[in-house]
Amino acid sequence: LEGKKYSRARDEILKANTVDIAEILEEVIEDIGIEKAIILFRTLPKDVSAEVFAYLPIDDQVAIINGITDREIQHIIDEMDFDDMIDVLEELPANVVDKILEKSTKEERRLINTFLNYPETSAGSLMTPDYISLRKNMTVAEALAHIKSEGMDRETVYTCYIKDEGRKLLGIVSLRTLVVSDDDVVVESLMHEDIIYVNVLDDQEDVSDTFKKYGFLAIPVVDNEKRLVGIITVDDILDVIDEETTEDFQKMAGVAVSTEEYLDMSVWKHVKNRLPWLFVLMCSYIITGSIITSFEAVLSQVIVLVAYLPMLMGTGGNSGSQSATLVIRGMAVGDVDLRDVGKVLWKELRVSFMIGLVLSLLNFIRICWVEGHGPWIALTVCGSMLVIVIAAKTIGSMLPMGAKKVGIDPALMASPMIASLTDMVSVVTYFALATFILGI
Amino acid sequence: LEGKKYSRARDEILKANTVDIAEILEEVIEDIGIEKAIILFRTLPKDVSAEVFAYLPIDDQVAIINGITDREIQHIIDEMDFDDMIDVLEELPANVVDKILEKSTKEERRLINTFLNYPETSAGSLMTPDYISLRKNMTVAEALAHIKSEGMDRETVYTCYIKDEGRKLLGIVSLRTLVVSDDDVVVESLMHEDIIYVNVLDDQEDVSDTFKKYGFLAIPVVDNEKRLVGIITVDDILDVIDEETTEDFQKMAGVAVSTEEYLDMSVWKHVKNRLPWLFVLMCSYIITGSIITSFEAVLSQVIVLVAYLPMLMGTGGNSGSQSATLVIRGMAVGDVDLRDVGKVLWKELRVSFMIGLVLSLLNFIRICWVEGHGPWIALTVCGSMLVIVIAAKTIGSMLPMGAKKVGIDPALMASPMIASLTDMVSVVTYFALATFILGI
Repeated sequence: LEGKKYSRARDEILKANTVDIAEILEEVIEDIGIEKAIILFRTLPKDVSAEVFAYLPIDDQVAIINGITDREIQHIIDEMDFDDMIDVLEELPANVVDKILEKSTKEERRLINTFLNYPETSAGSLMTPDYISLRKNMTVAEALAHIKSEGMDRETVYTCYIKDEGRKLLGIVSLRTLVVSDDDVVVESLMHEDIIYVNVLDDQEDVSDTFKKYGFLAIPVVDNEKRLVGIITVDDILDVIDEETTEDFQKMAGVAVSTEEYLDMSVWKHVKNRLPWLFVLMCSYIITGSIITSFEAVLSQVIVLVAYLPMLMGTGGNSGSQSATLVIRGMAVGDVDLRDVGKVLWKELRVSFMIGLVLSLLNFIRICWVEGHGPWIALTVCGSMLVIVIAAKTIGSMLPMGAKKVGIDPALMASPMIASLTDMVSVVTYFALATFILGI
Repeated sequence: LEGKKYSRARDEILKANTVDIAEILEEVIEDIGIEKAIILFRTLPKDVSAEVFAYLPIDDQVAIINGITDREIQHIIDEMDFDDMIDVLEELPANVVDKILEKSTKEERRLINTFLNYPETSAGSLMTPDYISLRKNMTVAEALAHIKSEGMDRETVYTCYIKDEGRKLLGIVSLRTLVVSDDDVVVESLMHEDIIYVNVLDDQEDVSDTFKKYGFLAIPVVDNEKRLVGIITVDDILDVIDEETTEDFQKMAGVAVSTEEYLDMSVWKHVKNRLPWLFVLMCSYIITGSIITSFEAVLSQVIVLVAYLPMLMGTGGNSGSQSATLVIRGMAVGDVDLRDVGKVLWKELRVSFMIGLVLSLLNFIRICWVEGHGPWIALTVCGSMLVIVIAAKTIGSMLPMGAKKVGIDPALMASPMIASLTDMVSVVTYFALATFILGI
C-alpha cells in the first residue's frame, strides 16, 4: 500500500465484507494517515464507499467529509441507507450537516428534519422509511414484481407492509409467505392483521424487549394516530442491546451514562462522569464515621474490635451486592416483577440466614480457637455477622424493587449504593452488640 | 374460561401471537391448574400447539408431556422446528426423551443424537439443519420453485446455501438477490463466495459477536473440514446475548453462573451459588484484620482515626469498581484491547489524581474546620485518600486486563474482588501514613 499501489490495494480489500473494509480503512487512517486513506476511499466503488462510510467511527467520518469534494459527499449520502444517514447526520457537526442538507431536494430535507427531531433513544431515531409497501388487492405475482423493482433500495424486503388510504397499517406479509404462495392469490388473504408494533416515541429499550420477546426481523413503527411512519430492523437492535447493557453496567458502578468509547473520552469527562457518585457515597460515610465516633468509649476499651470491622463491612457489602445484582437483572429480563416482592423477601431471608449462619460458625472457630480471643468477642463478631448478612441481603433485594416502584432505574441501587448503606448497618449492629454482650 | 367454554376461549386466544398464547397458557396453568390448561392446549391446531409448546417454561413442558398421549407428543415433536426440539430435549428428563426418541425414525434419531452431543454453549447447540440448499447451476426460476416447495418447513428462507458434492460450502445467496434478479440468471453468478461462518465448536459468545459485527440474519456453521452442518438465525442470538449478559452480571457480583430463573431456584442452590465467593472474600479480610492488629499501638493512641476508616475503604472500593467496570465492559464490546494497557493506565492515573485531589481537599476542609481535628489528622486522612484513590483505580483497571491476559474471565475481577484488595491497600496506607505524619 505504501508504494502508491492503490488500485491493487483496492482490489485486495474489495474481497472482504464491508464491515471488514471499514476496519481496514480505520487502521490505514491510524497507521498511515488520513490523506492516503482518503485516496484509497475514493478508489472504492460508490455503493461500497457509502456502506463503508456508515461503519466508520464518527471522527474518521468527519475527517473524510472534510477531505472530499461536495459532489462526493452528495454521492455518499445518496447511496446510504436512510437510517444510517440519520445516524451520521445526528453525530456530525452542524456546519457539515448544513453542507449536506443544502444539496438535498426539498422533500428529502423535510423527511431528514423530521427524523432528526425524534429523541435520541426513541424508536423514531432508529427507524427507516425505506420499507416495501404493498396494496391489499395486489396478487402475489404483482407483489413480487413490485418487490423486484424496488427491493434493492429498501432496508428489508422480508417483511412487507399494507396500508389503507389514511396510511394506517392494515397488515403485514412476509416475503416467505409470498414466495411459497401461488401467483394469483390476493395479498389481503395472506396478510397478518394482528400486528405487534411500537410507537415512534417508545424508548429503544422497550423496542429491543419486543424484538427479544417475539424474535422478529423487523417491526413497524406507528405514530399516535396508528399511521405507519417507518420500520426498525433487527440488525439495528443488536447495537441497541449493547448500548443498553453498557448503560446498566455504568449505572451499577456509579458512573454517569455515556455512549462514548472509554479511550476516546477525555480525562476531564471521565472525572466529570465518576466524581458525583463518589462524592455522594463519600458523604454517606460521614454518617458511618460519626456513628463510630459515638461508640469511641467502647472502642478504646476493646481495641481488638477494630480488626474485625473491615470483614463485617466487606462481607455485608458483598452479600448485599449479590442480592441486588440478581434482583436487578431478574427485573431487567422479566423473571422478577414487582408483584413478586413477597416471594423475593422470603427467599432472601432464608438464603441470608443460612449463609450468615455458616460464615458466623467459621468465624467463631477462628476467633475462639485460632486467635484465642475468648467466646464473648467471638459471640459479638458472629452475632453481628449473622445480623449484617441478613440485613444486607434484605436491603440489597428490596431497594432495587422499591426504586422501580417509585420510577427510579433499579440499576442505580447496585453495589456502591448498597455497600454504603450496609456499612452503616454494620457499624451500628457491631458496636451495639459489643456494648450489650461485652457489657461496656 | 372457567365455564368449560374451551372452544370460545381457543378462538379468542388464537387471535394472539404464538408468544402471547404461550404466556396465556402459562397463566392458566398457574391460576386455574394444569388439567384445564391441557384441555385448552389440546384444542389448539397442531402447528400452533407445537410452537406454543416451544415457548413454555421447562416445568410446564414436562407437565404437559405427562398429561397428553404418546401420539400427541409425537405430533408436537414432528411439527416443532429442529433447533427448538433440541432445546426441549436437552432440558427434558431422560425418560421423557427416551419416550420421544423411541417414536422417531432411525435417521431422525441419529441426527438428534448428534445435535444433543454438542456442548451446551457451542454453536452446534444453537444451530438447525433446516436450511435451504440450492445447486450452483440452478436458474433463479428453479431456485424460487425449490424455495416455494420447501420454504414452509425451513428455519429461514432468506439466506440460501450452495454446497459442492463433498458438502463443503461454496457460497450463499439471499432471497432478496434472487427476487430482484431475472428468472434465467444462474445462481452461481449471484452467490457470495467470501463467506463469514462459525465453527460448530465455537462458543456462543463468539457467535453473537459475529452477528453484532456484521448484522446478519443467519450464519452458516461448519465442521473442522469446512462442511456445512447447520445454520444459526438471529432470533436465537437475541436469547444468547441476554444469557451472556446475565452471566457477566453474575460473575461481577461474585455469584456462580446459572441460567435458572431467580424465583425458580431453590434456597439451597442460591446458598451454594453465593457462599463460595463470600467465603473467599471473607478470608481476604483476615489479612486486612491482621494488618489493623499490627497497628494497634497507633490506633489506641489516636482512636479518632477509626472514624475515617470506613470512608477511606469505601471510597477506595467505589473508585476501583468504577474503573474495573468501565474496563471490563470496554473489553467486552471491543473498545479496549490488551494492547491498550499503557493508554488505560495513563488515563486512569490522571483521572484518579484529579478525583483524589478534589475529594482530599473537601475532606481537609471538613476535618480541619467543621470537625476541628487539626491539620495533622486532616493531612493523614487526605494524603491517604489521594494514595488510595490512585491505587484503587490502578488496581481496578489493570486487574481485569491482567486476568484477560492469562485467560481468566475479566468479569471475575469486578467490585467484590477489587474492593477486597483496595481495602488492604487502604488500611496499610492509612496506618503507615498515620505513623509517619503523627509521629507515633
